[in-house]
Amino acid sequence: MSNRRVAGPEIERLIQLLAKVPGLGPRSARRAALALVKKREALMVPLAAAMTEAAAKIVVCSNCGNIDTLDPCSICRDERRDPGLLLVVKDVSDLWALERSGVVQSRYHVLGGTLSALDGIGPKDLSLDRLVARAAEGSVKEVVLALDATVDGQTTAHYVTDLLAGLPVKVSRLAQGVPIGGELDYLDEGTLAAALKARTPM
Amino acid sequence: MSNRRVAGPEIERLIQLLAKVPGLGPRSARRAALALVKKREALMVPLAAAMTEAAAKIVVCSNCGNIDTLDPCSICRDERRDPGLLLVVKDVSDLWALERSGVVQSRYHVLGGTLSALDGIGPKDLSLDRLVARAAEGSVKEVVLALDATVDGQTTAHYVTDLLAGLPVKVSRLAQGVPIGGELDYLDEGTLAAALKARTPM
Repeated sequence: MSNRRVAGPEIERLIQLLAKVPGLGPRSARRAALALVKKREALMVPLAAAMTEAAAKIVVCSNCGNIDTLDPCSICRDERRDPGLLLVVKDVSDLWALERSGVVQSRYHVLGGTLSALDGIGPKDLSLDRLVARAAEGSVKEVVLALDATVDGQTTAHYVTDLLAGLPVKVSRLAQGVPIGGELDYLDEGTLAAALKARTPM
Repeated sequence: MSNRRVAGPEIERLIQLLAKVPGLGPRSARRAALALVKKREALMVPLAAAMTEAAAKIVVCSNCGNIDTLDPCSICRDERRDPGLLLVVKDVSDLWALERSGVVQSRYHVLGGTLSALDGIGPKDLSLDRLVARAAEGSVKEVVLALDATVDGQTTAHYVTDLLAGLPVKVSRLAQGVPIGGELDYLDEGTLAAALKARTPM
């Protein structure tokens, strides 16, 4: 394949930038660019406006690390949420997943990552000082570590548990087991072992 | 899953619009939105600007149907291209694919689709009048139907062939056969049959 310029510089630049969006590669960026150009008024113009507006308005919550147009964010401001429970998550995407589930009636703390020797992510790279400060502040009774069931996630969970050991808060983590709708013969051995170990009476 | 609002209206709107981009679904749109918000200055602001610029500048070529910032487009204006050959393609994405290959030294005609009874696309929906006018204009000696090797693509190829029958132009189509690098035991029977039928001497 030659590097012959296919379209004008405006389209080439649009394709290059779209290719940097997670979920779009070089090939799908071209397809997306073409669709945007075709749906100019219905999609491209409104999307550009939405991005410009989001870029201007969105801030990171200085309390929990969530992203919102308010600081503190609307979750931290929500008086109906239980101040006794604090869910520690890796990333804003995990916070969104938990919010979508509708089962959380308390607040969050976004670490901004998990410890990873491989990726060179150490304790200094995570929002841990702020977590300790929030846990020590008095109203929090229990910290739930809602972290990935991966090596990095569990390493981080143990690190945070140690970090909070001196404080008068309970530390727990999400249960591990068979996912709802999960078929046993498609599950890995680790999940089956964890589910068996944590079996509950009928 | 509840429809509980996860983030502010600005982010929700960004996610909704991103989900309409081909290649991004509802889930990957959330991931993309989060990445854009995180890379605000490096990605979101430049991408919004590129979209706004593209929306303002890009036009459809009134001659061939290509998209460009010029009308006629830069391919139609390119004097070095052979005026005797005209490649008929379904869509601008096919034009781009052929331009990337670097093998085309002539011009194109974008039909804007292929005939499809199922999708209700008839001759009136395609740029056929303009194709006949270009083919009849005198300089074109051969029209190459560079259409998909699908039922709709081949139906369209036969339709266009009939349409051009009275004009003093040769009509040809792309060869069908084993793709370069293709392994025989992964190819479908139709391709193998076409490749055998169109076998060439060594």
